[in-house]
Amino acid sequence: MNNRPLKVALLGLGNVGAALASELQRRSDAIADRAGGPLELVGAAVRDPARARPGVPDALARSADPMALALREDVDIVVELMGGTGLAGEVVRAALAAGKAVVTANKALVASDADRLFALAKVHDAPLGFEAAVAGAIPALRALEVSLAGDRIRRVAGIVNGTCNYILTRMEVAGLDFDAALAEAQRLGFAEADPSSDVDGEDAAFKLTILARLALGAAAAPEAVSREGIRGVRAEDLRRAAEVDLVVRLLAIAERGDDGAIDLRVHPTLVPKEHPLAAVRGPMNAVWVEAEAAGPLMFYGAGAGGLPTASAVLGDLVAVAQRLRSGAGAVPRAGSEAAKLVDPGARQASVHVACLVADEPGVLAAIAGAFARHGVSVESCVQHGRHADPVELVFVTHRCREDALDAALAEVRALPAVREVASRLRVQPDAEG
Amino acid sequence: MNNRPLKVALLGLGNVGAALASELQRRSDAIADRAGGPLELVGAAVRDPARARPGVPDALARSADPMALALREDVDIVVELMGGTGLAGEVVRAALAAGKAVVTANKALVASDADRLFALAKVHDAPLGFEAAVAGAIPALRALEVSLAGDRIRRVAGIVNGTCNYILTRMEVAGLDFDAALAEAQRLGFAEADPSSDVDGEDAAFKLTILARLALGAAAAPEAVSREGIRGVRAEDLRRAAEVDLVVRLLAIAERGDDGAIDLRVHPTLVPKEHPLAAVRGPMNAVWVEAEAAGPLMFYGAGAGGLPTASAVLGDLVAVAQRLRSGAGAVPRAGSEAAKLVDPGARQASVHVACLVADEPGVLAAIAGAFARHGVSVESCVQHGRHADPVELVFVTHRCREDALDAALAEVRALPAVREVASRLRVQPDAEG
Repeated sequence: MNNRPLKVALLGLGNVGAALASELQRRSDAIADRAGGPLELVGAAVRDPARARPGVPDALARSADPMALALREDVDIVVELMGGTGLAGEVVRAALAAGKAVVTANKALVASDADRLFALAKVHDAPLGFEAAVAGAIPALRALEVSLAGDRIRRVAGIVNGTCNYILTRMEVAGLDFDAALAEAQRLGFAEADPSSDVDGEDAAFKLTILARLALGAAAAPEAVSREGIRGVRAEDLRRAAEVDLVVRLLAIAERGDDGAIDLRVHPTLVPKEHPLAAVRGPMNAVWVEAEAAGPLMFYGAGAGGLPTASAVLGDLVAVAQRLRSGAGAVPRAGSEAAKLVDPGARQASVHVACLVADEPGVLAAIAGAFARHGVSVESCVQHGRHADPVELVFVTHRCREDALDAALAEVRALPAVREVASRLRVQPDAEG
Repeated sequence: MNNRPLKVALLGLGNVGAALASELQRRSDAIADRAGGPLELVGAAVRDPARARPGVPDALARSADPMALALREDVDIVVELMGGTGLAGEVVRAALAAGKAVVTANKALVASDADRLFALAKVHDAPLGFEAAVAGAIPALRALEVSLAGDRIRRVAGIVNGTCNYILTRMEVAGLDFDAALAEAQRLGFAEADPSSDVDGEDAAFKLTILARLALGAAAAPEAVSREGIRGVRAEDLRRAAEVDLVVRLLAIAERGDDGAIDLRVHPTLVPKEHPLAAVRGPMNAVWVEAEAAGPLMFYGAGAGGLPTASAVLGDLVAVAQRLRSGAGAVPRAGSEAAKLVDPGARQASVHVACLVADEPGVLAAIAGAFARHGVSVESCVQHGRHADPVELVFVTHRCREDALDAALAEVRALPAVREVASRLRVQPDAEG
């Protein structure tokens, strides 16, 4: 290919799209230098082409028909920033089938439709990039796919939801409870009016399945991820964790067990405050990777926002343009297999369990007995408060099976002196002594 | 290219070479899958072919002539792990000139000879990878070159010398002085018998020039880097830093000023303990990047060691093999220009200055007067110790010019009551309030 301009169709002009359009214009020479020739933005598809959009170049042609724009004969690269899995999925699949390169930031689409998308890209030799779909600006996916291609990854643990990380770190630093921290996050634009997808772990589960596919070659639907959000995390849990030098982070974890089964889970996790993941604060994201040869790696940066996400999209755009110009075609992508998932009950972890109980003799013995009957060994127990009802007993278990702990806690809940099992937080496995 | 095996010549069988040979054998199927076809290790060049090397496959042919092996007609990819800039440089240049792909972990060679190497690679359309030359296993270079290709990087600050980081964190955690921490590092294999290149910042300067070239397009010789090692850091400095929630890290910093001039420097730096760089402990490395669109990013991992470095070499090998198979040729690389370096005296930072002085009236006033005469504004001053000789006065300056502080400290040293200016530590710029 000569260095005629490569024509780019932009689908979506929200925060990311507007930032991208503006960067492509503002830095066109530098980007052309890196991409081996100019990139020309030929049009943008938006729901309402008439609406004024501050920051977007006026000269950019608007269309209300993303499919028509994407499939225009002269378009080489389609950048999909519409979101959702319906129309966006149809357009992306059609563009790949037409042999066009595609760059997308759409986590829900890639998480739920990767098999089809990867197959279309391969068959039609169409480069497909989606770095921005996980952890915004952080180039973790390219690291997993390219840099670690010769290594074998055992485990990925990501802080991939900035809303949850903001809430948890505000609870930690300012002593806020969940509701107050959420309200603050909403006020500052770090949380949506309906925060469910973020705080209940759905968003993290989408991103986790993408990480698992690239890191472990394990294909699984987002619904297959065991997930627990952060609504149940109490300010007390963070205070007590801090007393023993732990913090709480919502981790999205993918790991391969010795038997080859894959564990995919999202849950609030106790992390030692010296661990690099504990240094990830506010709305920042990070992806922690453990590889056989490389050892531990961490990739840190902004997980969302117009400009940071646009940076990742631009990186993909340049990489895709280089491929088109060199005739390299589709991005080589390792195969993945339907994940054989672990039995959730067989998962093992050390767990902090907070029980609200009546302050009366024999309660500790009764609870300890329930743990013992199910083979859950207790490492420590501390009572917080005295002569109150309830007081709080925090148990730290040794590494135990999840089903054993479930069964023990069912008995604990049934004890007359026990008001509530108020929280249950797993300790990050590599934090164990 | 069909998927006939690509033939690989390995130059050097030290820790990294032996780990690489063993991984290439142990994981050959997975690597072939990622590389688009088999990689065949056809021989290794070593100084003493007869020496037994545990862990290296016996079947691997040994040669004492790296040039002959590299230039063998059937060799597609040369992996250079010999080190040094003499023979290694000759062989790498000859291999590139013969159109062979080259992967190297040789920081000294890439730092000192990048212009020639990049030009040879381009002219002969030969892929050249050197991810392992900076920060071992951490895929920071690919992130700078590819993922951030559409962004504009303002600043890079790396912890790129594991020996220094080990020593500084041991001084911090265990209260050791420099000599004791160095001796411990030597005992544990984290420092060489002659540690000068590490503790005096030469090794970090090599890596910094590579980072500066890829991140800022700024070409400079390693000798052009302003460098100060860690021999002058005292246990007291770390204790006092800890009292105000700071830690010390040896940072290798490359940044572009508003006037386009480039600052390249290596020095011990005060970093807030909440900063992600403070979470980099022991022999680990990290590269902190500030980009216009992406914002801050950090890449963390093992900076040295046989297997971690081999992981980065393997990543390059797979990427290079993919390029050869797809006919993509040389890695597209942004141009760089000879860096216009900043005037060191014009650098600005807030600085912690420790003065050992006689405990007598008027000393503080005299020192403060010297600062004032040179326009250095003092933010705080704390005396440590009383009725002793000497006592220690620690001044924290507001952001000031380096030449102004130099001039002020020359006056301070000349004061009769001042025994010594014992240390002088700059604060990480983005840590300032």
